[in-house]
Amino acid sequence: MSAYKTIKQEAYEANIKLPELGLVLFTFGNASAADRDKGVFAIKPSGVAYDDLKVEDMVIVDFEGQTVEGSMRPSSDTKTHAVLYKEWSSIGGIVHTHSTYGTAWAQAQLDIPIYGTTHADYLAGDVPCAPVMSDEMIKGNYEYETGYQIVNCFKDKSISPEEVEMMIVANHAPFTWGKDADKAVHNSAVLEEIAKMAWLTQSINLNVPRLKDSLIEKHYKRKHGDDSYYGQP
Amino acid sequence: MSAYKTIKQEAYEANIKLPELGLVLFTFGNASAADRDKGVFAIKPSGVAYDDLKVEDMVIVDFEGQTVEGSMRPSSDTKTHAVLYKEWSSIGGIVHTHSTYGTAWAQAQLDIPIYGTTHADYLAGDVPCAPVMSDEMIKGNYEYETGYQIVNCFKDKSISPEEVEMMIVANHAPFTWGKDADKAVHNSAVLEEIAKMAWLTQSINLNVPRLKDSLIEKHYKRKHGDDSYYGQP
Amino acid sequence: MSAYKTIKQEAYEANIKLPELGLVLFTFGNASAADRDKGVFAIKPSGVAYDDLKVEDMVIVDFEGQTVEGSMRPSSDTKTHAVLYKEWSSIGGIVHTHSTYGTAWAQAQLDIPIYGTTHADYLAGDVPCAPVMSDEMIKGNYEYETGYQIVNCFKDKSISPEEVEMMIVANHAPFTWGKDADKAVHNSAVLEEIAKMAWLTQSINLNVPRLKDSLIEKHYKRKHGDDSYYGQP
Amino acid sequence: MSAYKTIKQEAYEANIKLPELGLVLFTFGNASAADRDKGVFAIKPSGVAYDDLKVEDMVIVDFEGQTVEGSMRPSSDTKTHAVLYKEWSSIGGIVHTHSTYGTAWAQAQLDIPIYGTTHADYLAGDVPCAPVMSDEMIKGNYEYETGYQIVNCFKDKSISPEEVEMMIVANHAPFTWGKDADKAVHNSAVLEEIAKMAWLTQSINLNVPRLKDSLIEKHYKRKHGDDSYYGQP
Repeated sequence: MSAYKTIKQEAYEANIKLPELGLVLFTFGNASAADRDKGVFAIKPSGVAYDDLKVEDMVIVDFEGQTVEGSMRPSSDTKTHAVLYKEWSSIGGIVHTHSTYGTAWAQAQLDIPIYGTTHADYLAGDVPCAPVMSDEMIKGNYEYETGYQIVNCFKDKSISPEEVEMMIVANHAPFTWGKDADKAVHNSAVLEEIAKMAWLTQSINLNVPRLKDSLIEKHYKRKHGDDSYYGQP
Repeated sequence: MSAYKTIKQEAYEANIKLPELGLVLFTFGNASAADRDKGVFAIKPSGVAYDDLKVEDMVIVDFEGQTVEGSMRPSSDTKTHAVLYKEWSSIGGIVHTHSTYGTAWAQAQLDIPIYGTTHADYLAGDVPCAPVMSDEMIKGNYEYETGYQIVNCFKDKSISPEEVEMMIVANHAPFTWGKDADKAVHNSAVLEEIAKMAWLTQSINLNVPRLKDSLIEKHYKRKHGDDSYYGQP
Repeated sequence: MSAYKTIKQEAYEANIKLPELGLVLFTFGNASAADRDKGVFAIKPSGVAYDDLKVEDMVIVDFEGQTVEGSMRPSSDTKTHAVLYKEWSSIGGIVHTHSTYGTAWAQAQLDIPIYGTTHADYLAGDVPCAPVMSDEMIKGNYEYETGYQIVNCFKDKSISPEEVEMMIVANHAPFTWGKDADKAVHNSAVLEEIAKMAWLTQSINLNVPRLKDSLIEKHYKRKHGDDSYYGQP
Repeated sequence: MSAYKTIKQEAYEANIKLPELGLVLFTFGNASAADRDKGVFAIKPSGVAYDDLKVEDMVIVDFEGQTVEGSMRPSSDTKTHAVLYKEWSSIGGIVHTHSTYGTAWAQAQLDIPIYGTTHADYLAGDVPCAPVMSDEMIKGNYEYETGYQIVNCFKDKSISPEEVEMMIVANHAPFTWGKDADKAVHNSAVLEEIAKMAWLTQSINLNVPRLKDSLIEKHYKRKHGDDSYYGQP
């Protein structure tokens, strides 16, 4: 039996939730789950339909992007996952989708503005949009560089991956993460919903201001930190 | 057996209808049902997934917001429900959701204009949007103050909770109510539908006038008051 | 056994298709089926949920709007149906819904422009929007006058109910009809789809011209008249 | 047994996937599958509901548009399929739908701009929109001329049907193709998704630039050509 049974199961369950939540068409997405002790993650094989996916198909890859176990080719976005796991030691799961509304904001090359408490329940600012990559990055080790485009975006904005568990890459699509793959899936669905709400909000009232600081702080702290009081203790 | 069996069942059924009607993602909503004789209401526990919810999980709370029965922490919005039940003696059920189109109008900080008979079948004016709360209210007893923001909005506009069973809180989301929890759920779905229709109407014809008074009166009275003739006698 | 068994069955089947096709929320719609020989039609009872509806609940009404058989109160829109059957002798079924996109155009008080062949497969011009009713009509015999607002709209535009089987009433919602109730249901779904497409078309290119005459004529005649060649002979 | 069993089965399976993928309302679409050795294709009969469709209903037609086998009348768009098979020898399947967002772009008479990598994974430029047909073409052999409108659009733009497997005809709707009918269905769903994303992108940021060449080339080549590395080897 594989030494990676737990993360294979976790990655499998995260992947098959993506079509159930309406976040992917065909194979337009992938989820991974990391084992920090072993320094590896399990990820969806490339181009396999979700209906055909099996737990044992998950490919085990290390944080340099090298396959450790598995007969199939891992997701074409594997190196992006590897960079994020390597650079951000606190995260345990990653999801990438081309969900419709999140991708539209990425194509529009804009941060998703924080307009309401639905958004502030998850993060205390706009959903960041990493800038369009340079031709050098694109023509080089593209998926690897995509990871660094994300990491550098967070460095430039002085935000941490613990505070903000979702973002979009300009011209591309959303990436989300969390303590495990299940939380990363959850965050993907939340990103899609707040992306749709933000588009509708602007469509109704183009000049509406962003959410004010006191409400951002209140809602974010209802769900995060020592004084949070959402959910069960 | 609990003395509150009836309202627990009523609150449970109202809560599980919310995902069925497409009004909530994950745990973004809550429904409650009041027992006026006993001076309490049953409400969803905080952060529990609708799929995992059981009748006996419902928490019994009094109109001051104090838990009377139940081992779980009640919804984080419990104090808002308590204030509405306390201030508005005619209502028997309350629903709060972050439904997509209703929330977009809340984020746009605008009343939902009355444009057609679908809307006038339910209320004789715009769906009111309570203004953005002050920093003092937000930093104080937030959920309690949210209740008073709603109550004061209705006082300022001279409308009663019997005439208008739905509203939105700016930057936040919809609240609806009714004689019982089932009617409050019904009103949540209606609010979402007329919010979507109003957005589309403006998108097609930005300068269209509001519904004229004679049509508002006609449709509202088809369904309300002594001369109503909609439904079975 | 009822002498009206056939039209009761036909009206019942048409009514339960409306929620299946996503055209109604709750009880926001009604379908009827006429028996021209007997001078009556079967229609949905008012305010009954589609899930609870039974064939024997259908109410039999004559073309003056008087109930002939049935213990329940017929749809509040019954007189509108009666006027259309009385004035338009060729039609055998009528459907009224508050479907989202069709209703948005009605609220926008605009004809739905003919932009493509999807539309021209069904009618050779815009979907007409009857003007807002006068206060006198609204305060008088409202549902009866709604029928005449529709009939007069077609007279004023010199179009016949055989050529154009769908329309919208300003501030209200769509009405469709056909040789039988099933065709009227079909037309309701088509109206909703072309209403959505027309809104999207304008949203993409506000100044796009209407479909040109040669294409309108070609597509309309593919499906209508002696030289039609769509479907099986 | 029919000598065309394989393509009848292939065409049948492609056709019934169209409603499953939400690409057609009622009978608004058709799929075909070609047998290049025999010089024929199997296509849906005209006007038959997808629910009622059977494998043996598929009509066998040659590349001149003449029926070779089958008792039913083939799709009214059969001659368009025949022209494409005749002119483009590399394709093995064709799908035509009136899917909502693709049709809206066709009605807007605009190419669907390439804004992101979702689009570039499939084609290295805008989705072409063939111009409105001339009155002579429309009044002549209309469906045959529609085929040449498509073929000439590709000639004028110097693109091949192997590079670009999807397009829209102005005022009409999408056409897609591929090595077989299943790939043509896949492309129809992709066209609809990127049509929706492009509309949303413009709605969020009207002045956003098209995707830059380096990203187009990178993503297109991830999935196409000798150096592709998407999917399993």
